[in-house]
Amino acid sequence: MTPEQILAHRYRQVRERSERLCLPLAPEDHVPQPLPEVSPPKWHLAHTAWFFETMVLAHHAEGYRPFDKRYAYLFNSYYESLGERALRAHRGHFSRPTVAEVLAYRAHVDAAMLQLLGHALPPALADLVDLGLHHEQQHQELLLTDLKVILGQNPLAPAYDPTHLSGVDLIAEHDGICPPLDEWITQHAGTYEVGHGGPGFAFDNESPRHAVLLQPVQLRAALVTNDEYRAFMDDGGYERFEFWQSDGWQWVHDAQARSPMYWRRSGEHGGRWVHYTLAGEQPVQGQAPVTHVNAYEAHAFCAWAGWRLPTEFEWETLAPRLNTGRRWEWTGSAYLPYPGFTPHAGNVGEYNGKFMINQMVLRGASFATPPGHARPTYRNFFLPAQRWQYTGIRPARPA
Amino acid sequence: MTPEQILAHRYRQVRERSERLCLPLAPEDHVPQPLPEVSPPKWHLAHTAWFFETMVLAHHAEGYRPFDKRYAYLFNSYYESLGERALRAHRGHFSRPTVAEVLAYRAHVDAAMLQLLGHALPPALADLVDLGLHHEQQHQELLLTDLKVILGQNPLAPAYDPTHLSGVDLIAEHDGICPPLDEWITQHAGTYEVGHGGPGFAFDNESPRHAVLLQPVQLRAALVTNDEYRAFMDDGGYERFEFWQSDGWQWVHDAQARSPMYWRRSGEHGGRWVHYTLAGEQPVQGQAPVTHVNAYEAHAFCAWAGWRLPTEFEWETLAPRLNTGRRWEWTGSAYLPYPGFTPHAGNVGEYNGKFMINQMVLRGASFATPPGHARPTYRNFFLPAQRWQYTGIRPARPA
Amino acid sequence: MTPEQILAHRYRQVRERSERLCLPLAPEDHVPQPLPEVSPPKWHLAHTAWFFETMVLAHHAEGYRPFDKRYAYLFNSYYESLGERALRAHRGHFSRPTVAEVLAYRAHVDAAMLQLLGHALPPALADLVDLGLHHEQQHQELLLTDLKVILGQNPLAPAYDPTHLSGVDLIAEHDGICPPLDEWITQHAGTYEVGHGGPGFAFDNESPRHAVLLQPVQLRAALVTNDEYRAFMDDGGYERFEFWQSDGWQWVHDAQARSPMYWRRSGEHGGRWVHYTLAGEQPVQGQAPVTHVNAYEAHAFCAWAGWRLPTEFEWETLAPRLNTGRRWEWTGSAYLPYPGFTPHAGNVGEYNGKFMINQMVLRGASFATPPGHARPTYRNFFLPAQRWQYTGIRPARPA
Amino acid sequence: MTPEQILAHRYRQVRERSERLCLPLAPEDHVPQPLPEVSPPKWHLAHTAWFFETMVLAHHAEGYRPFDKRYAYLFNSYYESLGERALRAHRGHFSRPTVAEVLAYRAHVDAAMLQLLGHALPPALADLVDLGLHHEQQHQELLLTDLKVILGQNPLAPAYDPTHLSGVDLIAEHDGICPPLDEWITQHAGTYEVGHGGPGFAFDNESPRHAVLLQPVQLRAALVTNDEYRAFMDDGGYERFEFWQSDGWQWVHDAQARSPMYWRRSGEHGGRWVHYTLAGEQPVQGQAPVTHVNAYEAHAFCAWAGWRLPTEFEWETLAPRLNTGRRWEWTGSAYLPYPGFTPHAGNVGEYNGKFMINQMVLRGASFATPPGHARPTYRNFFLPAQRWQYTGIRPARPA
Repeated sequence: MTPEQILAHRYRQVRERSERLCLPLAPEDHVPQPLPEVSPPKWHLAHTAWFFETMVLAHHAEGYRPFDKRYAYLFNSYYESLGERALRAHRGHFSRPTVAEVLAYRAHVDAAMLQLLGHALPPALADLVDLGLHHEQQHQELLLTDLKVILGQNPLAPAYDPTHLSGVDLIAEHDGICPPLDEWITQHAGTYEVGHGGPGFAFDNESPRHAVLLQPVQLRAALVTNDEYRAFMDDGGYERFEFWQSDGWQWVHDAQARSPMYWRRSGEHGGRWVHYTLAGEQPVQGQAPVTHVNAYEAHAFCAWAGWRLPTEFEWETLAPRLNTGRRWEWTGSAYLPYPGFTPHAGNVGEYNGKFMINQMVLRGASFATPPGHARPTYRNFFLPAQRWQYTGIRPARPA
Repeated sequence: MTPEQILAHRYRQVRERSERLCLPLAPEDHVPQPLPEVSPPKWHLAHTAWFFETMVLAHHAEGYRPFDKRYAYLFNSYYESLGERALRAHRGHFSRPTVAEVLAYRAHVDAAMLQLLGHALPPALADLVDLGLHHEQQHQELLLTDLKVILGQNPLAPAYDPTHLSGVDLIAEHDGICPPLDEWITQHAGTYEVGHGGPGFAFDNESPRHAVLLQPVQLRAALVTNDEYRAFMDDGGYERFEFWQSDGWQWVHDAQARSPMYWRRSGEHGGRWVHYTLAGEQPVQGQAPVTHVNAYEAHAFCAWAGWRLPTEFEWETLAPRLNTGRRWEWTGSAYLPYPGFTPHAGNVGEYNGKFMINQMVLRGASFATPPGHARPTYRNFFLPAQRWQYTGIRPARPA
Repeated sequence: MTPEQILAHRYRQVRERSERLCLPLAPEDHVPQPLPEVSPPKWHLAHTAWFFETMVLAHHAEGYRPFDKRYAYLFNSYYESLGERALRAHRGHFSRPTVAEVLAYRAHVDAAMLQLLGHALPPALADLVDLGLHHEQQHQELLLTDLKVILGQNPLAPAYDPTHLSGVDLIAEHDGICPPLDEWITQHAGTYEVGHGGPGFAFDNESPRHAVLLQPVQLRAALVTNDEYRAFMDDGGYERFEFWQSDGWQWVHDAQARSPMYWRRSGEHGGRWVHYTLAGEQPVQGQAPVTHVNAYEAHAFCAWAGWRLPTEFEWETLAPRLNTGRRWEWTGSAYLPYPGFTPHAGNVGEYNGKFMINQMVLRGASFATPPGHARPTYRNFFLPAQRWQYTGIRPARPA
Repeated sequence: MTPEQILAHRYRQVRERSERLCLPLAPEDHVPQPLPEVSPPKWHLAHTAWFFETMVLAHHAEGYRPFDKRYAYLFNSYYESLGERALRAHRGHFSRPTVAEVLAYRAHVDAAMLQLLGHALPPALADLVDLGLHHEQQHQELLLTDLKVILGQNPLAPAYDPTHLSGVDLIAEHDGICPPLDEWITQHAGTYEVGHGGPGFAFDNESPRHAVLLQPVQLRAALVTNDEYRAFMDDGGYERFEFWQSDGWQWVHDAQARSPMYWRRSGEHGGRWVHYTLAGEQPVQGQAPVTHVNAYEAHAFCAWAGWRLPTEFEWETLAPRLNTGRRWEWTGSAYLPYPGFTPHAGNVGEYNGKFMINQMVLRGASFATPPGHARPTYRNFFLPAQRWQYTGIRPARPA
């Protein structure tokens, strides 16, 4: 196969997966936005088409006619260079285009893209298409986490995919097998190389590869489990300020937080803990890794346990020896540019760099991350208070 | 026909009309809530079923089993006596139950209701069913005005019913025939009886019938037209504080208001005025009555024109001689209880009385009011700043 | 004495009283604004000087030079016709001018005013000066109520005037003598004249005098007492929605209200009720009229007791036969223009009319009202949720 | 002199300086809080006394009686371990205690402290007193910056200290001598030690001393000047999104920012730039270092100029060769714990550590920093949007 054929094959696979994720949904499920940071599934489907239309087809596909010029306004996420856009918090206000119309939009874009991919492409353009596919994979993960909010805050708490249409392994969301809790992996002091330096794809924020100095450290093989987190809760974790950062303690108060997101006690008189999962409400499994905690909770738990969060470089250099891929693991590192960082050229230069303030780095991946999407150098980032992603806690301690 | 047969017939008619109003909609259109005071169409369909289930069937239909007990939480509007309910501002967060499930809910309720109506009913129960039907008609109007917000704030500005499924006369929304603008109807000074005193249905807030003293007054036969309102705008109406009440002037500033709701200039360089209607975007017709103005705008227009708003009793006593039924007409009267007012008994006592503060009375009816629903004694009420209803302005002046 | 001499005498008296009210204060007490609706005492002192400077001296005193041109911006309250002004919520941000500078400002204005009053004045100008004095008296009452908020929300709860410098009878604020609670005054049905029609001073909102129709009614000679209100509280008044208007119930929830403003239980284990008064914290006296309740609380109390609030016209026609002057009594009447209402001419036309929306009428007067300021036709008005004035409750019931 | 005598001498000096800073003020100036992050001068005076009373005297001075037990509630800043406290945003609501009472409070504390310092102290206690003095020095700087907000937002824009009572060199705030703008200081790649390791005082957040790896870098000898910053403004700096971080661009929009804080154009038709200084309004001096910019503005300026901000370690290792001490210099480093960080023991453990999230590090010092207070290892920290401190911009570039 030519590189273009390979790319076209990959294009089809990635694009189909987005639509497959929506197969179990009713049209109504594609619309709401219960939190400002959550986007309706319909928006994800349309925005990922918009990316190819705007970044690729508009400039590189001769004679391409946009499906609907007004979509540029509706489905731009945050690209200032591409003009006005609908307010993020209003994404749930739009019933039109309908799901059927969005799927027609996607088909229109796919037809043009596949025609484009039928010919030899300059490398920069092929890279741009590749970026668009990685972008779509990121939205596939968000689609699932956003959908979990939509279904999970509903008092009816419906299951996402009872008839297994999506292809997502939903057992992996909440199952219970874990490495032993007393197994710690040691990193010796020294100078290590971190960041992306190889030939494959990486986002701009993973570069340049550079040396860092690490002190001796141990990371635990296992993530913090639900049982461990419950011990923190039972020990007054949410009532004892001494474990919390100042902003975290304020968050506990404002959000009236008493447990991870989605947890509630079943029954009226303080019964056992259950949590909403994409498979519906389930008992909390003690040995599964805790999830849906924010950076404040991760910090407070570690302060209680006598541990700390790893830095992103401790994590990266130890990643091959850890059990990863089940949770996005909060690190103690702020999301900042690497020394010598240069953004992508062109409009996609707004992709990562402009967010390098006020956010914390997460490493790893989750069951919701599309297969093959993440890397040990991958830098995910969220605000410290956010917890609707599949986040988790990795203990670190001095070696 | 027996009274129960008549009631059953009316029940079927009213209930079917609600569903017919939704026939032109996509499932997605039933979901959003772009303003806190707007409810999703799906919610209206379900809430009106909830009313019959909760107020009638739960107490009077032996062996009735609720369709889904959790709906009581989801679809209670504001009845404190009936327990906890979802926050009003969260109605747009719920994708489930789907439209199909809500229609099944309605069918379930209808089956039980029609069975109940198959037997002789005590008069109080028949009255309660009748109240439920008037309640449903109120929601039919809200369904249309809320839907107009949903479709009208969408940049795609879709028409509601291009293939005429709803049975609503959409021409009447924005057409242009009006009585002569210089025709004024005179009321002489004297004592007049107002309020509902007859045998037919009326809401509790229309009673008791009582005497009021009126000074000589003239009301104009015609409502304020778009042309007249545009003259106010062109004369700096929204920039000149002297016409505005203090809270109104603050509203102009906060809302950045410059025209009635839904109006915008077509083209980029200040072209002619168009407005969104349920038939899509249309040129503003100069001789049609202006609509979607709030009480502040109605007051400011009158102050500019040298007129004032009529009181609700001036309106009521003159109503038979006016051209009414096209707009809900703002009055200068606050929504307060009539002397000797007594609310409905039971849970429905929360229907009207508890809102008798902070609101202004509107009289009349609009094209969106179900046929036969309104009366000259009918008291509609909204907050002064609200303007998503089909409101209008009736000039008054001393006789 | 000539009319100008009489006016000059009155001018001196009123102006001196404002300054006397501030004699017991530390300079620091003149600065804070703990609630947006509260103004710092310094602001009241300066604003009342600004009124005479701007409304009178600037137009009628030849060669008058403003004390400081920038004060026009700082001390305009709400007159749009007089240009830009500092945000109301920012009044507590300004430490300068200092109290001493404000007193110098007042002296500067007084010198020019007294010079002006040394000559014959056209009647309209004399009326304007008179209006300015009534305006200053209104601010004397506000100065006391605002000061009560400033001192009363302070955990140190200092007394206002321990050495009796102010001339205010502070015993009258919270003492206990009351008419018998079972004495009701009857008004027969009929047509009554209300509003100001006489020769003396009145605000524009009290006119025109006009006829109203009243139904038979009884007003209680005594206001609601603290004991009565406590019975309402003890009977779950703040926990039972059925007594409350919808907006009132929301207010209870948002404000976490459980008692009148300034009340708290002494001691840690639910001791007796005490309340902050200008004489410092005091036991609540059971037989004194309850105060610092808002319109929602007044309504809810009456609903609980089986009574209602009087209308402003019931009150006005019965006032001579009631025991009034101790509280501003909430009425059930919205603050609306009388038939044929015309505002004052000129800038002072913004005085009353533009507030005739969203507010409720209060009648009477309080111990904080300057002697001779109120009249039976006097219409005070506040928002339903406000309760930092000396408000009270007058029971009404059908005769 | 004994160590205690030295400490007592230093105690007197530091404590007197706080009061001297307030000598030029009117009592009224001690009260307002125009921004939530600003504290009234009175609060600073009282809080620094509270620190000694609560942290030292309450535990170590036998028989000490608190001046007023209620002050513990009023003047606790953020110590959760020390019980309830007044809301930070309410500090401007309190007129009492008056300034005179606060000074009496200070004298009461000073008498007890000086008695305590008259005897030999265990080293940990001497360290705690020393910490209290460094704490007071931090509040001396805040007192000046907060006061600048209080006076500077006042339309009268009064000068702080026209008769030179404070001892502060106010010329240094805005004067103009600077190193040449093309002088860059080079740091070679290598491993460097950073953090506090010596015998003198340092805050807990400066430890432990540890090695970091630096890449070759150049820092400019001179800070960014007003002229340079104005060139950025004139080149559309505040209108061009491409220079801004995403949160920074949002801040520009929300704050309607167009220049550094305190700048405005004199005259009506876009005259020259002036800015408020503690010496009153002054022309902006082109060669003085720009100040009152936040981290977003610092970043945007550097992006425009083709530079970047230094990291805190680049700054620390180069500090001896730079011209520092005039501005707090924003770094590109997030405020995070050093490897192996341990907070102070006891209540003062809340001093620094719990703020290590969401903030950026600033290095250097300003004219408002008390003499001798800062060190090259000193880590100041503020939120990225804050700019009421004397902040500045240090250019960095690859060597």
